[in-house]
Amino acid sequence: MSQPVVRIGVFDSGFGGLTVLRALLEQLPAAEFCYLGDSARLPYGSKSRETVARYAVESARLLESDGAQYLVIACNTASALALDAIRESVRVPVLGVIETGADSAAAVSVSRDVLVLATDATVQSHAYGAACAERGMRALEQACPLLVPLIEEGWTTANPDPERSAVTRRVLQLYLAEAAARAADAGMTPDTLLLGCTHYPLLRDMLGSLVPANMRILDSAQTTARRVQRELGAPAASSSSASSRRCRFLATDSVEKFQSLGSRFLGQPIREVEHIDLGG
Amino acid sequence: MSQPVVRIGVFDSGFGGLTVLRALLEQLPAAEFCYLGDSARLPYGSKSRETVARYAVESARLLESDGAQYLVIACNTASALALDAIRESVRVPVLGVIETGADSAAAVSVSRDVLVLATDATVQSHAYGAACAERGMRALEQACPLLVPLIEEGWTTANPDPERSAVTRRVLQLYLAEAAARAADAGMTPDTLLLGCTHYPLLRDMLGSLVPANMRILDSAQTTARRVQRELGAPAASSSSASSRRCRFLATDSVEKFQSLGSRFLGQPIREVEHIDLGG
Repeated sequence: MSQPVVRIGVFDSGFGGLTVLRALLEQLPAAEFCYLGDSARLPYGSKSRETVARYAVESARLLESDGAQYLVIACNTASALALDAIRESVRVPVLGVIETGADSAAAVSVSRDVLVLATDATVQSHAYGAACAERGMRALEQACPLLVPLIEEGWTTANPDPERSAVTRRVLQLYLAEAAARAADAGMTPDTLLLGCTHYPLLRDMLGSLVPANMRILDSAQTTARRVQRELGAPAASSSSASSRRCRFLATDSVEKFQSLGSRFLGQPIREVEHIDLGG
Repeated sequence: MSQPVVRIGVFDSGFGGLTVLRALLEQLPAAEFCYLGDSARLPYGSKSRETVARYAVESARLLESDGAQYLVIACNTASALALDAIRESVRVPVLGVIETGADSAAAVSVSRDVLVLATDATVQSHAYGAACAERGMRALEQACPLLVPLIEEGWTTANPDPERSAVTRRVLQLYLAEAAARAADAGMTPDTLLLGCTHYPLLRDMLGSLVPANMRILDSAQTTARRVQRELGAPAASSSSASSRRCRFLATDSVEKFQSLGSRFLGQPIREVEHIDLGG
């Protein structure tokens, strides 16, 4: 007897959530997905709680009306600032990436001190600090506002011009030095680095070469995907088929830009994107 | 007999237009202003023509209903993508910064080749290319998408950490090198550099140290202010009083952020900001 197909809605302010969708496609081979990128109003990371909550609730309702039985908020800023507002506005279960990220840190950290790199808005919300405290850890939250624009411009190790990726490397060094100074001041010894923004997995290699060898780097895409699989009782992945054909893509800004930029985050071509208007 | 006070609406996607407002306050000492920063939906520079036009028209209508008798679109992206749409949607005269910028270049360029630094959306619109061609010049339009985030983070010469301003300097060098290579390929010899984004005046000193000594750097804030003064037949400034008390400030996102970031662009404190909701 085959299980009914489950439909999962995935929401992000733009493209970063596609790193989470990628993990979901791999972990849940029988599910169907609808991904909504609110690209006309990105980035959320520099906006206020009220504005982010209003945007995120509109998007969550749209995914629910599209038939989603489960919502993944694949955006750290929206998870930090709007998770309660989203849960109050829809009937289906809602999972944010911050709780799952904190869970994964709690499973591996020995020093119980965690370094979190994130956007301004996520840091100012102290959502990671609260989630880590609930799990008996301390979080050093470091805002890295320039990383999203650098990643979206493609100034990563994938860039053919090494002078451009060198700029991003330099910016990362400055942020990590600031974090190290703050950790020393606070008497903290982080042994775990949590990527608190769904864009940052694209800098994972670069980060690996800049942090001490004993520092574990965690991104919440994998842990989020495993958590969804467990909660839905979905069969574990038996193959590595992660075709994006099982996903409907919606974007609030240019579909061409979503296709070209999004493919880099998803790791495969995005063939069809529908434009939608959320009235913003 | 005293002239009736004229009310001028100034629109930008966020903060950069405050460099234009600053010039207007200086040039039009008897006018009153209303500045609208659509900060909940910035940046416009990475969004599509349709989206930018929709946002800009909503904002222009709001300024007209607030009593503006004249509108200044102090945003290059909106001037490039939405000027016609704005003019069709309001009854008052509308001035964009691109025409005035091209006019100022036409007045000084000897080689008739102009280098324009701007956002992605402004470059892709080729609005400067068209405006320069109409004036018998060629424009080399160079997209510099990382400059706005770097300026908004304050990684300019005003930053107390020279390692941070050095990153911006390096990014500028890479953009200027790309532009120089493209100019050589096209057989162009620009002698004039037009700042095609209202954020860029904050990098004027840094740019001055990176371009050849004979290159003139122009920003459209001053020329725009003089044009408005001329068109309105307003008296020339007799004092240097440019108090922001003659301006009402409206923002679609956090008023605190508008005050702290905006004061840097305006060059003086912004005391009171009203939050408005454009339904986005």
